[in-house]
Amino acid sequence: MVGVLRLTIAYDGSPFAGWAAQPGLRTVQSELEAALETLFQRPVPLTVAGRTDAGVHAWGQVASFEARADPPDGLVRRVNSMLPTEIAVLTAEAAPDGFDARRDARSRTYCYWVIAGPVRNPLQAGRALWWPYRVDAEALDCCAGMLLGSHDFTAFTPTQTEHVRFERNVVRAEWRAHPLGAPFPGRLLEFWIEADAFMRHMVRILVGTMLGVADGRRSREDFEGLLAGAPRDRAGDTAPAQGLYLAAVRY
Amino acid sequence: MVGVLRLTIAYDGSPFAGWAAQPGLRTVQSELEAALETLFQRPVPLTVAGRTDAGVHAWGQVASFEARADPPDGLVRRVNSMLPTEIAVLTAEAAPDGFDARRDARSRTYCYWVIAGPVRNPLQAGRALWWPYRVDAEALDCCAGMLLGSHDFTAFTPTQTEHVRFERNVVRAEWRAHPLGAPFPGRLLEFWIEADAFMRHMVRILVGTMLGVADGRRSREDFEGLLAGAPRDRAGDTAPAQGLYLAAVRY
Repeated sequence: MVGVLRLTIAYDGSPFAGWAAQPGLRTVQSELEAALETLFQRPVPLTVAGRTDAGVHAWGQVASFEARADPPDGLVRRVNSMLPTEIAVLTAEAAPDGFDARRDARSRTYCYWVIAGPVRNPLQAGRALWWPYRVDAEALDCCAGMLLGSHDFTAFTPTQTEHVRFERNVVRAEWRAHPLGAPFPGRLLEFWIEADAFMRHMVRILVGTMLGVADGRRSREDFEGLLAGAPRDRAGDTAPAQGLYLAAVRY
Repeated sequence: MVGVLRLTIAYDGSPFAGWAAQPGLRTVQSELEAALETLFQRPVPLTVAGRTDAGVHAWGQVASFEARADPPDGLVRRVNSMLPTEIAVLTAEAAPDGFDARRDARSRTYCYWVIAGPVRNPLQAGRALWWPYRVDAEALDCCAGMLLGSHDFTAFTPTQTEHVRFERNVVRAEWRAHPLGAPFPGRLLEFWIEADAFMRHMVRILVGTMLGVADGRRSREDFEGLLAGAPRDRAGDTAPAQGLYLAAVRY
């Protein structure tokens, strides 16, 4: 008799209005809950580690639900056969009683893909931000280093309310570069960030602002100054959702 | 004064009815010729190395045209700014007088992507064939080895006419396997094949038939027997277009 089931989920966020179910919109949660309801023959409300925004992808999303009974044989295969090709359940496993994918998460890891080069790669359209401008790799590394530790990320979210805690603790932040591979000129730049939790648009505004440092529009000192609770309008652009991936959740 | 220009082109074939211009259909050739016509202010008919079918991708397509004049500055950047995100010109360079991308090609190289594993990867949907069945890697290597050299590929094309030469000379044929990378279980299998020329659907039927050997439905001896001019109905399925890439053209 299994109490709670924990799913690891991957999706291409392009066609969805984000994770969270919303009336009249196609979302990852609603597609997944519909498939699970067919399989379990009852409503299966999901709790999720990261409520990703419209267009954001995932290869390490985690959701949990009360199974009330042992999972049917071949659960993963059967759920996937009912899901659209843009969503796949990678694993399903029993979790400890009372497990909650959101509340019990100790950290989330996101990855943002930037294609830095003179021509876009059509085979990565919708999967990465194409950035044909100057990239000072050392400046990116410097910015990532500043992110480590606890900071007030008010500048990096559109959320404005008195009742929200804007401090987050970043335990990993780094840029990695890979050659794109012939015949594509340029590099794939991956920005990896792990923190206890993230605010809305936080990774995307961090990336947009760091690219402003990398192309020379903004100084490193200015970037550092944003990490002490500066207002949103002091930071840079919100990088597009298409480059962002929820990569892992730690428990 | 430049006579002929040679373009290297990449595209996501998913939204197109193939390379070749067809009335009323969205094709790679028509999109590209429309952009070039805007730039050169006259019709620019293209000659192409490989007329890819509907849904087939490319990262190494080559096309040529009579430029009649030196190319405008920033040709690549300007053409790309007029193309949809699914197509990009990677390079544009002057070619010898009389150069013809189709006639002068000495060989074409195609690559076919198969995701071999128990769950599909939504981030590769439309980019690869998902194959959750048994894969005997040694059988695949054995089949690829048999392809080297000159054979009659009648079994591997739907084309039926007395006036077509069905013999092709394969100079490279190999399977390569790469781990998909966490958290995805399974491998990316790449089938690489280079030949003087290809017949319609040839790579896709070769892949479909080799996968039949790899999952045990067909013997290696049977596969070998197909290479001497057997009829089409003796070979296997046509693997879907979404896994196929025109990778390179040699001159």
